[in-house]
This record gives sequence, C-alpha cells and structure tokens, in this order.
Amino acid sequence: MLLDPWSASGIDDYEKLIKEFGIEPVNSDIVNSLPKPGKYFRRGIIFGHRGFDVVLAAILNGEPFAVLSGIKPSGAFHLGSLTTAEQIVYYQKEYGATAFYCIADVEAFCDNRIPYEKSFKIAIDNLADVLALGLDPDKAYIYRQSEEKRVMDLAFEAGAHVTTAMMKAIYGEQTVFGLYMTALLQVGDILLPEHEDFNGPKPVVVPVGADQDPHIRLTRDIAKRLRSRYKFILPSATFHRLIRGLDGSEKMSKRNPMSYFELNEDIESIKPKIMNALTGGRPTVREQRELGGEPYKCRIYELAFFRIDDDSFVEDIYRKCTNGELICGDCKAMIFEKIAAWLKEHNLRKRKMLDLAYKLLEEK
Amino acid sequence: MLLDPWSASGIDDYEKLIKEFGIEPVNSDIVNSLPKPGKYFRRGIIFGHRGFDVVLAAILNGEPFAVLSGIKPSGAFHLGSLTTAEQIVYYQKEYGATAFYCIADVEAFCDNRIPYEKSFKIAIDNLADVLALGLDPDKAYIYRQSEEKRVMDLAFEAGAHVTTAMMKAIYGEQTVFGLYMTALLQVGDILLPEHEDFNGPKPVVVPVGADQDPHIRLTRDIAKRLRSRYKFILPSATFHRLIRGLDGSEKMSKRNPMSYFELNEDIESIKPKIMNALTGGRPTVREQRELGGEPYKCRIYELAFFRIDDDSFVEDIYRKCTNGELICGDCKAMIFEKIAAWLKEHNLRKRKMLDLAYKLLEEK
Repeated sequence: MLLDPWSASGIDDYEKLIKEFGIEPVNSDIVNSLPKPGKYFRRGIIFGHRGFDVVLAAILNGEPFAVLSGIKPSGAFHLGSLTTAEQIVYYQKEYGATAFYCIADVEAFCDNRIPYEKSFKIAIDNLADVLALGLDPDKAYIYRQSEEKRVMDLAFEAGAHVTTAMMKAIYGEQTVFGLYMTALLQVGDILLPEHEDFNGPKPVVVPVGADQDPHIRLTRDIAKRLRSRYKFILPSATFHRLIRGLDGSEKMSKRNPMSYFELNEDIESIKPKIMNALTGGRPTVREQRELGGEPYKCRIYELAFFRIDDDSFVEDIYRKCTNGELICGDCKAMIFEKIAAWLKEHNLRKRKMLDLAYKLLEEK
Repeated sequence: MLLDPWSASGIDDYEKLIKEFGIEPVNSDIVNSLPKPGKYFRRGIIFGHRGFDVVLAAILNGEPFAVLSGIKPSGAFHLGSLTTAEQIVYYQKEYGATAFYCIADVEAFCDNRIPYEKSFKIAIDNLADVLALGLDPDKAYIYRQSEEKRVMDLAFEAGAHVTTAMMKAIYGEQTVFGLYMTALLQVGDILLPEHEDFNGPKPVVVPVGADQDPHIRLTRDIAKRLRSRYKFILPSATFHRLIRGLDGSEKMSKRNPMSYFELNEDIESIKPKIMNALTGGRPTVREQRELGGEPYKCRIYELAFFRIDDDSFVEDIYRKCTNGELICGDCKAMIFEKIAAWLKEHNLRKRKMLDLAYKLLEEK
C-alpha cells in the first residue's frame, strides 16, 4: 500500500497504518499525561504519532517547542481544514509553543498550477481563518514557501542526502518532476523551526492527516542524516482521522460539493448539506424509538464529534440517539443551528482579520 | 549515447554530437561574421552551437546581450578551466556583453559533498583567476548559487514544467536525487540573465564543453514552456572541444596528475608534465628530420593551440614541425618557457585580485 499525500485516497483503516507503517498509537497514557488534552486527543481523533514523546516531555517540563502546520493555498477554508488549524492554535495557546505556519504556494503552483499572484490572495483568506480561530501572530512565524530561502536551502541539502530510489519508494512514480521537489520543500518546512535563526534544535510537532505520513517519514530520515551537522531533534508528528463526507462518501472532496462545505459558504447552501447528510437512523421512526440510532454510522454525529467542543453535549447526543430519544430530523436541525451560529461568529471574526492577514503576508 | 555532465566521459567524436544531437556546426560564415573572432572561434575549438544566431545578431547590431558561465568550486583553476573563463572575458571585453558568473556551490555540495564554508574559500581563489584573466566586475553579476534565491525560484518553476521521464531521458538514472535538482538549478542560472531584475529578456550565450549539452537542451526546452509568462529569448550555447590530457589520455583528470596542471602549481611540478607529454614525434631524430612530426597527434601542439594567442607563432610551430625543422625536445622546452612566463604573470595578477574576489563574493 502506497500513501500519496497529493491525492489522499480514502484511508479507512487507520489501524493498518499502525501495523504496517510503524505509526505508534496514541494511548490513554499519553492523553492522560497531557495537562490539557484538547478535544482531538480526548476523542481519539488523533490516533497515532511518531516521536511525540519528546514533545510531551517539553510540555511537561515547560521547555520550548514548536508546532508546525500549513496550507496549500488552493481554495477557501473548509470543514476539513479546521482539524489541523485548530491543533496549531491548541499547542500555541495551551502550552506556549511557537507556531510555524507555512503557505505552501510552491506546492500549489507545482500541483495545481496556481500562479503565485493568485495563491497569495487565497493565502490571505486562509490565514484570516486561522487568525479567527485564535492563532496569535506575535508568537508565530507565518511565511510563504516561495519567499523563504531557508526552506529552499534545506530542500536542496535534503536532496543531496536522499536517493532517487527512496523518493520513488515513498512517493511512487510522479509525472511532474516538481512534485518530488515540493516534497523536499516540505522537509525544509518541517526542519525550519530548528534552524539556527529560530534558536536551533527543539522538539517540533506536526499535526497531520494520516495521508501525510510519507512526508513525515522522509523528514525524519533526512533529519537523521543531517543530524551531525545541525544537531536536529527528530521532528514529531501526530496523525488524525479525517472527517468523512457528509453525504456518506469516505472523503470530503471538491468534486463532490454535497460532501463538505466551505466556511465562507452561504448558510442557505450549507443547510441542505447537513439536512441531507447520511445518518445512522433506522428506516422508520418507530424502529428508531425502539432500537435507537447508530451514531458510528452517522455523519452528523461525526460532524458534532469534530466540531462541537462541549463533551457533555456530544455525549448527550450519543446517549439520546442510541436510546431512541432523539430522531434524525431533530438532531440535524439542532446541529445545523449550532454550526450556523459558530460559522456566523467565525466569519465575523475572520472579516476583521483580513487586513492583518494581508499585512502579515505582505511583509514577508 | 547518453551525455552525463557530471562525469564527462571522453567525447572523442564531436561530429557525432552534430549528427546525433542536433548541435549546429560553427562554420566559416559565423566565424567571418564576427567583428573580432577570438582564438576559440578562429581555431575551430568552438565547433558547434545552439541558437547562436540571436547572439550574433545582437553583436552585429550593437544590442545588449549577456554571457553566462560558472564554475563548480571543487578545486583550483587548471588548464582546462581556462577555455570557458577566457570566453566569458572575450564577450564582455570585445562586445560589451554583461557577464554572469555563477559559483555553483550547491552543485559542489550535492556532487562532491563540499560544505559551503569550504567551497566559499575555493570560489574566492577561482574568481581571482577569472579576474586576473580580465573579467571586469563592474560589468558582471557574480554570485554564489546558494545565495541566489531567484535561481532557486526558477529551478522550482522549471521543476513544475518538466516530467520525471524527461529528467531521466536527459540525465540517466542518478542515485543521488539532488543531482537532478542541481540540473534544474543550472536551468535557473542560465535563465537568470533574462530575469526582470536584469532588464528582462535578451540574447544569452553560454560557452560550454560539449558534455554540458544536456543542460542546454533542458534549459531551452523549459524556456519554451515558460515563454508565455516571461517572454524568454531561448538561451544560446556554443560548444568547444576539451583540451586533452598532456600524457596522452583522452581527458584531463584529477585522478591522473600527469594529464594536467593547476594554475597555482609549482613550476617545477609543471615542467616534467610538459617535458614528458605525448607528442607526434617520430621514433628517431633522423626520421623526424626526414618525415616531419605529426602535430595532430601531439599534446604539446594542442597546448600551444589552446594557450598561445599569437596565430603566427602557432602556425610557425606547425610548419616547422611538419617539415622536420623542429625537434620535440626543443619544441617542448620552448612551449614550457612560454607557458611558464604566462603563468608567472597570471599568478602575479591573480594574487592582487584575491581581496577583490573575497569582497565580491562576501557582499552577496
């Protein structure tokens, strides 16, 4: 099985990753050790990691560490983009991590042919979303890949330490040669927080979807090879489940507009996506009252699970669903109201952040 | 037949390049059109070109053009390094071309594992040689690859426009992935003179050994693909014969110290290399007096042909050799004296250039 981070094919069996690729499971020991386990840890959405122990130690000892994430500026923020963005804010806010946020515009160019002028505009919009989610720009380094020479330097140095066979083994046969190069740019991104200009080696956590593991493995391998020169601490990663398509598809996809929504989408456009989502409901109301619903099959439950912070609220839904108290129509309407209210607030906050986002990216 | 610019295997049949690879011959029309044909043109050392017509037109019309060359800073300047270096000076001095001189330190790192701190020192020495040969730094842009972000930008953009299959077809299977990347850096180097920061599109000539044709073909191909965006004029190249090993080997090589000498080598070390060089002499003096020597077999004649500017002097040797007047021992001693005198002067000039070379590279 070959993981391709550029066209994430549905990875439905996360356990396979743990068994076959050596991703370590995130168990209750880790979750319980965290002074403030966020919802992604508490709820098992983060299911695996590589080398998280050094980050955990830094958290527990109050030592400096960094969190790195980024976005390929190819479109508006959507439901799926939130998982990573919220985690970067989590580490910064709860544990004082320095946040590194990369706008992967070179990748957007190589992969999607989006010219830099256009991806710059998209990036402003994306960054405003992240700022609205709570990213503190004063404790963050935000940059465009195309403007960050240190990342390019690291990419070329990485290239000198990697064999062509290894690139192929990890990424498969890529037609566009530049895609291999952008993979090495991502290596550079992940190593950047340990650059001497940022106070050198430190633990770094990269929260990613499981489909990004190839980048993580490559980076850790290259970090080992460059260790004698830079004293890198091997970068860590956590792996989270991807929120699945509302319509029942395995994966949210732009090609399938009913599977997801963008954060800036008209609320009247979002409503039918939620109201028509796949649920774990029974064929008839009577059956549902008798047998209860099946939340583990339900994309509305999944939506609540990912999006609603209040544990007791989510537990309540689960309980009322499985004991037949809550009927799908009512549940959908309730979740829609919650999501709509959150979106309204978020977009108000975001609008106020657009100027700042422009300023932050313009400066670089 | 696959040309590999990183481990130039002896290309003994230059005609094959013209027939098989579509390099155009440099004929007498071109040479006679040049207002000041330098020795490399006059003597047919430059045997082929790609797209030289646009450069020739710029020369004849007094329009701006650029000449680009460079060096991989992996060791001291040697006999073979002079051919390219003298041509860059030629275009700058005779026709007012803007000279671009690239220190390919990223390539030195990928290919020879030379760290940047070390290649920087070598580069200072190399640049001092080029300055001593007459390069005017006020009309030149001299840079280290590792410091020139525009070249990296162009390399990544080139990568997005090239297929993996094409890289393999041109460069073969390379174990170190970074070597493909440095090939794209060279593409960036060659396109740099047409960057908007340097007044945009213009004819550019790149004087290279025939073994560098892969880079030229790749660059011209990519320049075509990027044309709609940057209006590039396809870069031109001329191809010159490589001076062969003094000891009779087909190629000067570091592994074979008798085949070449470095410009800063002790004169007592150079002397035996010249005095023991392969000649076109006959087995006995008597035979030589009767039949004459065979200069086309003679590495001393080749040395004179490449290194001594005075046409009549070189013609004189040829005549005296072939008519039996000149005996190899005398000829070698005479050529050695000429070379030694030139080297002495050159190294005096060079020593005075070291500070300037440091300053020029330090600034970047």
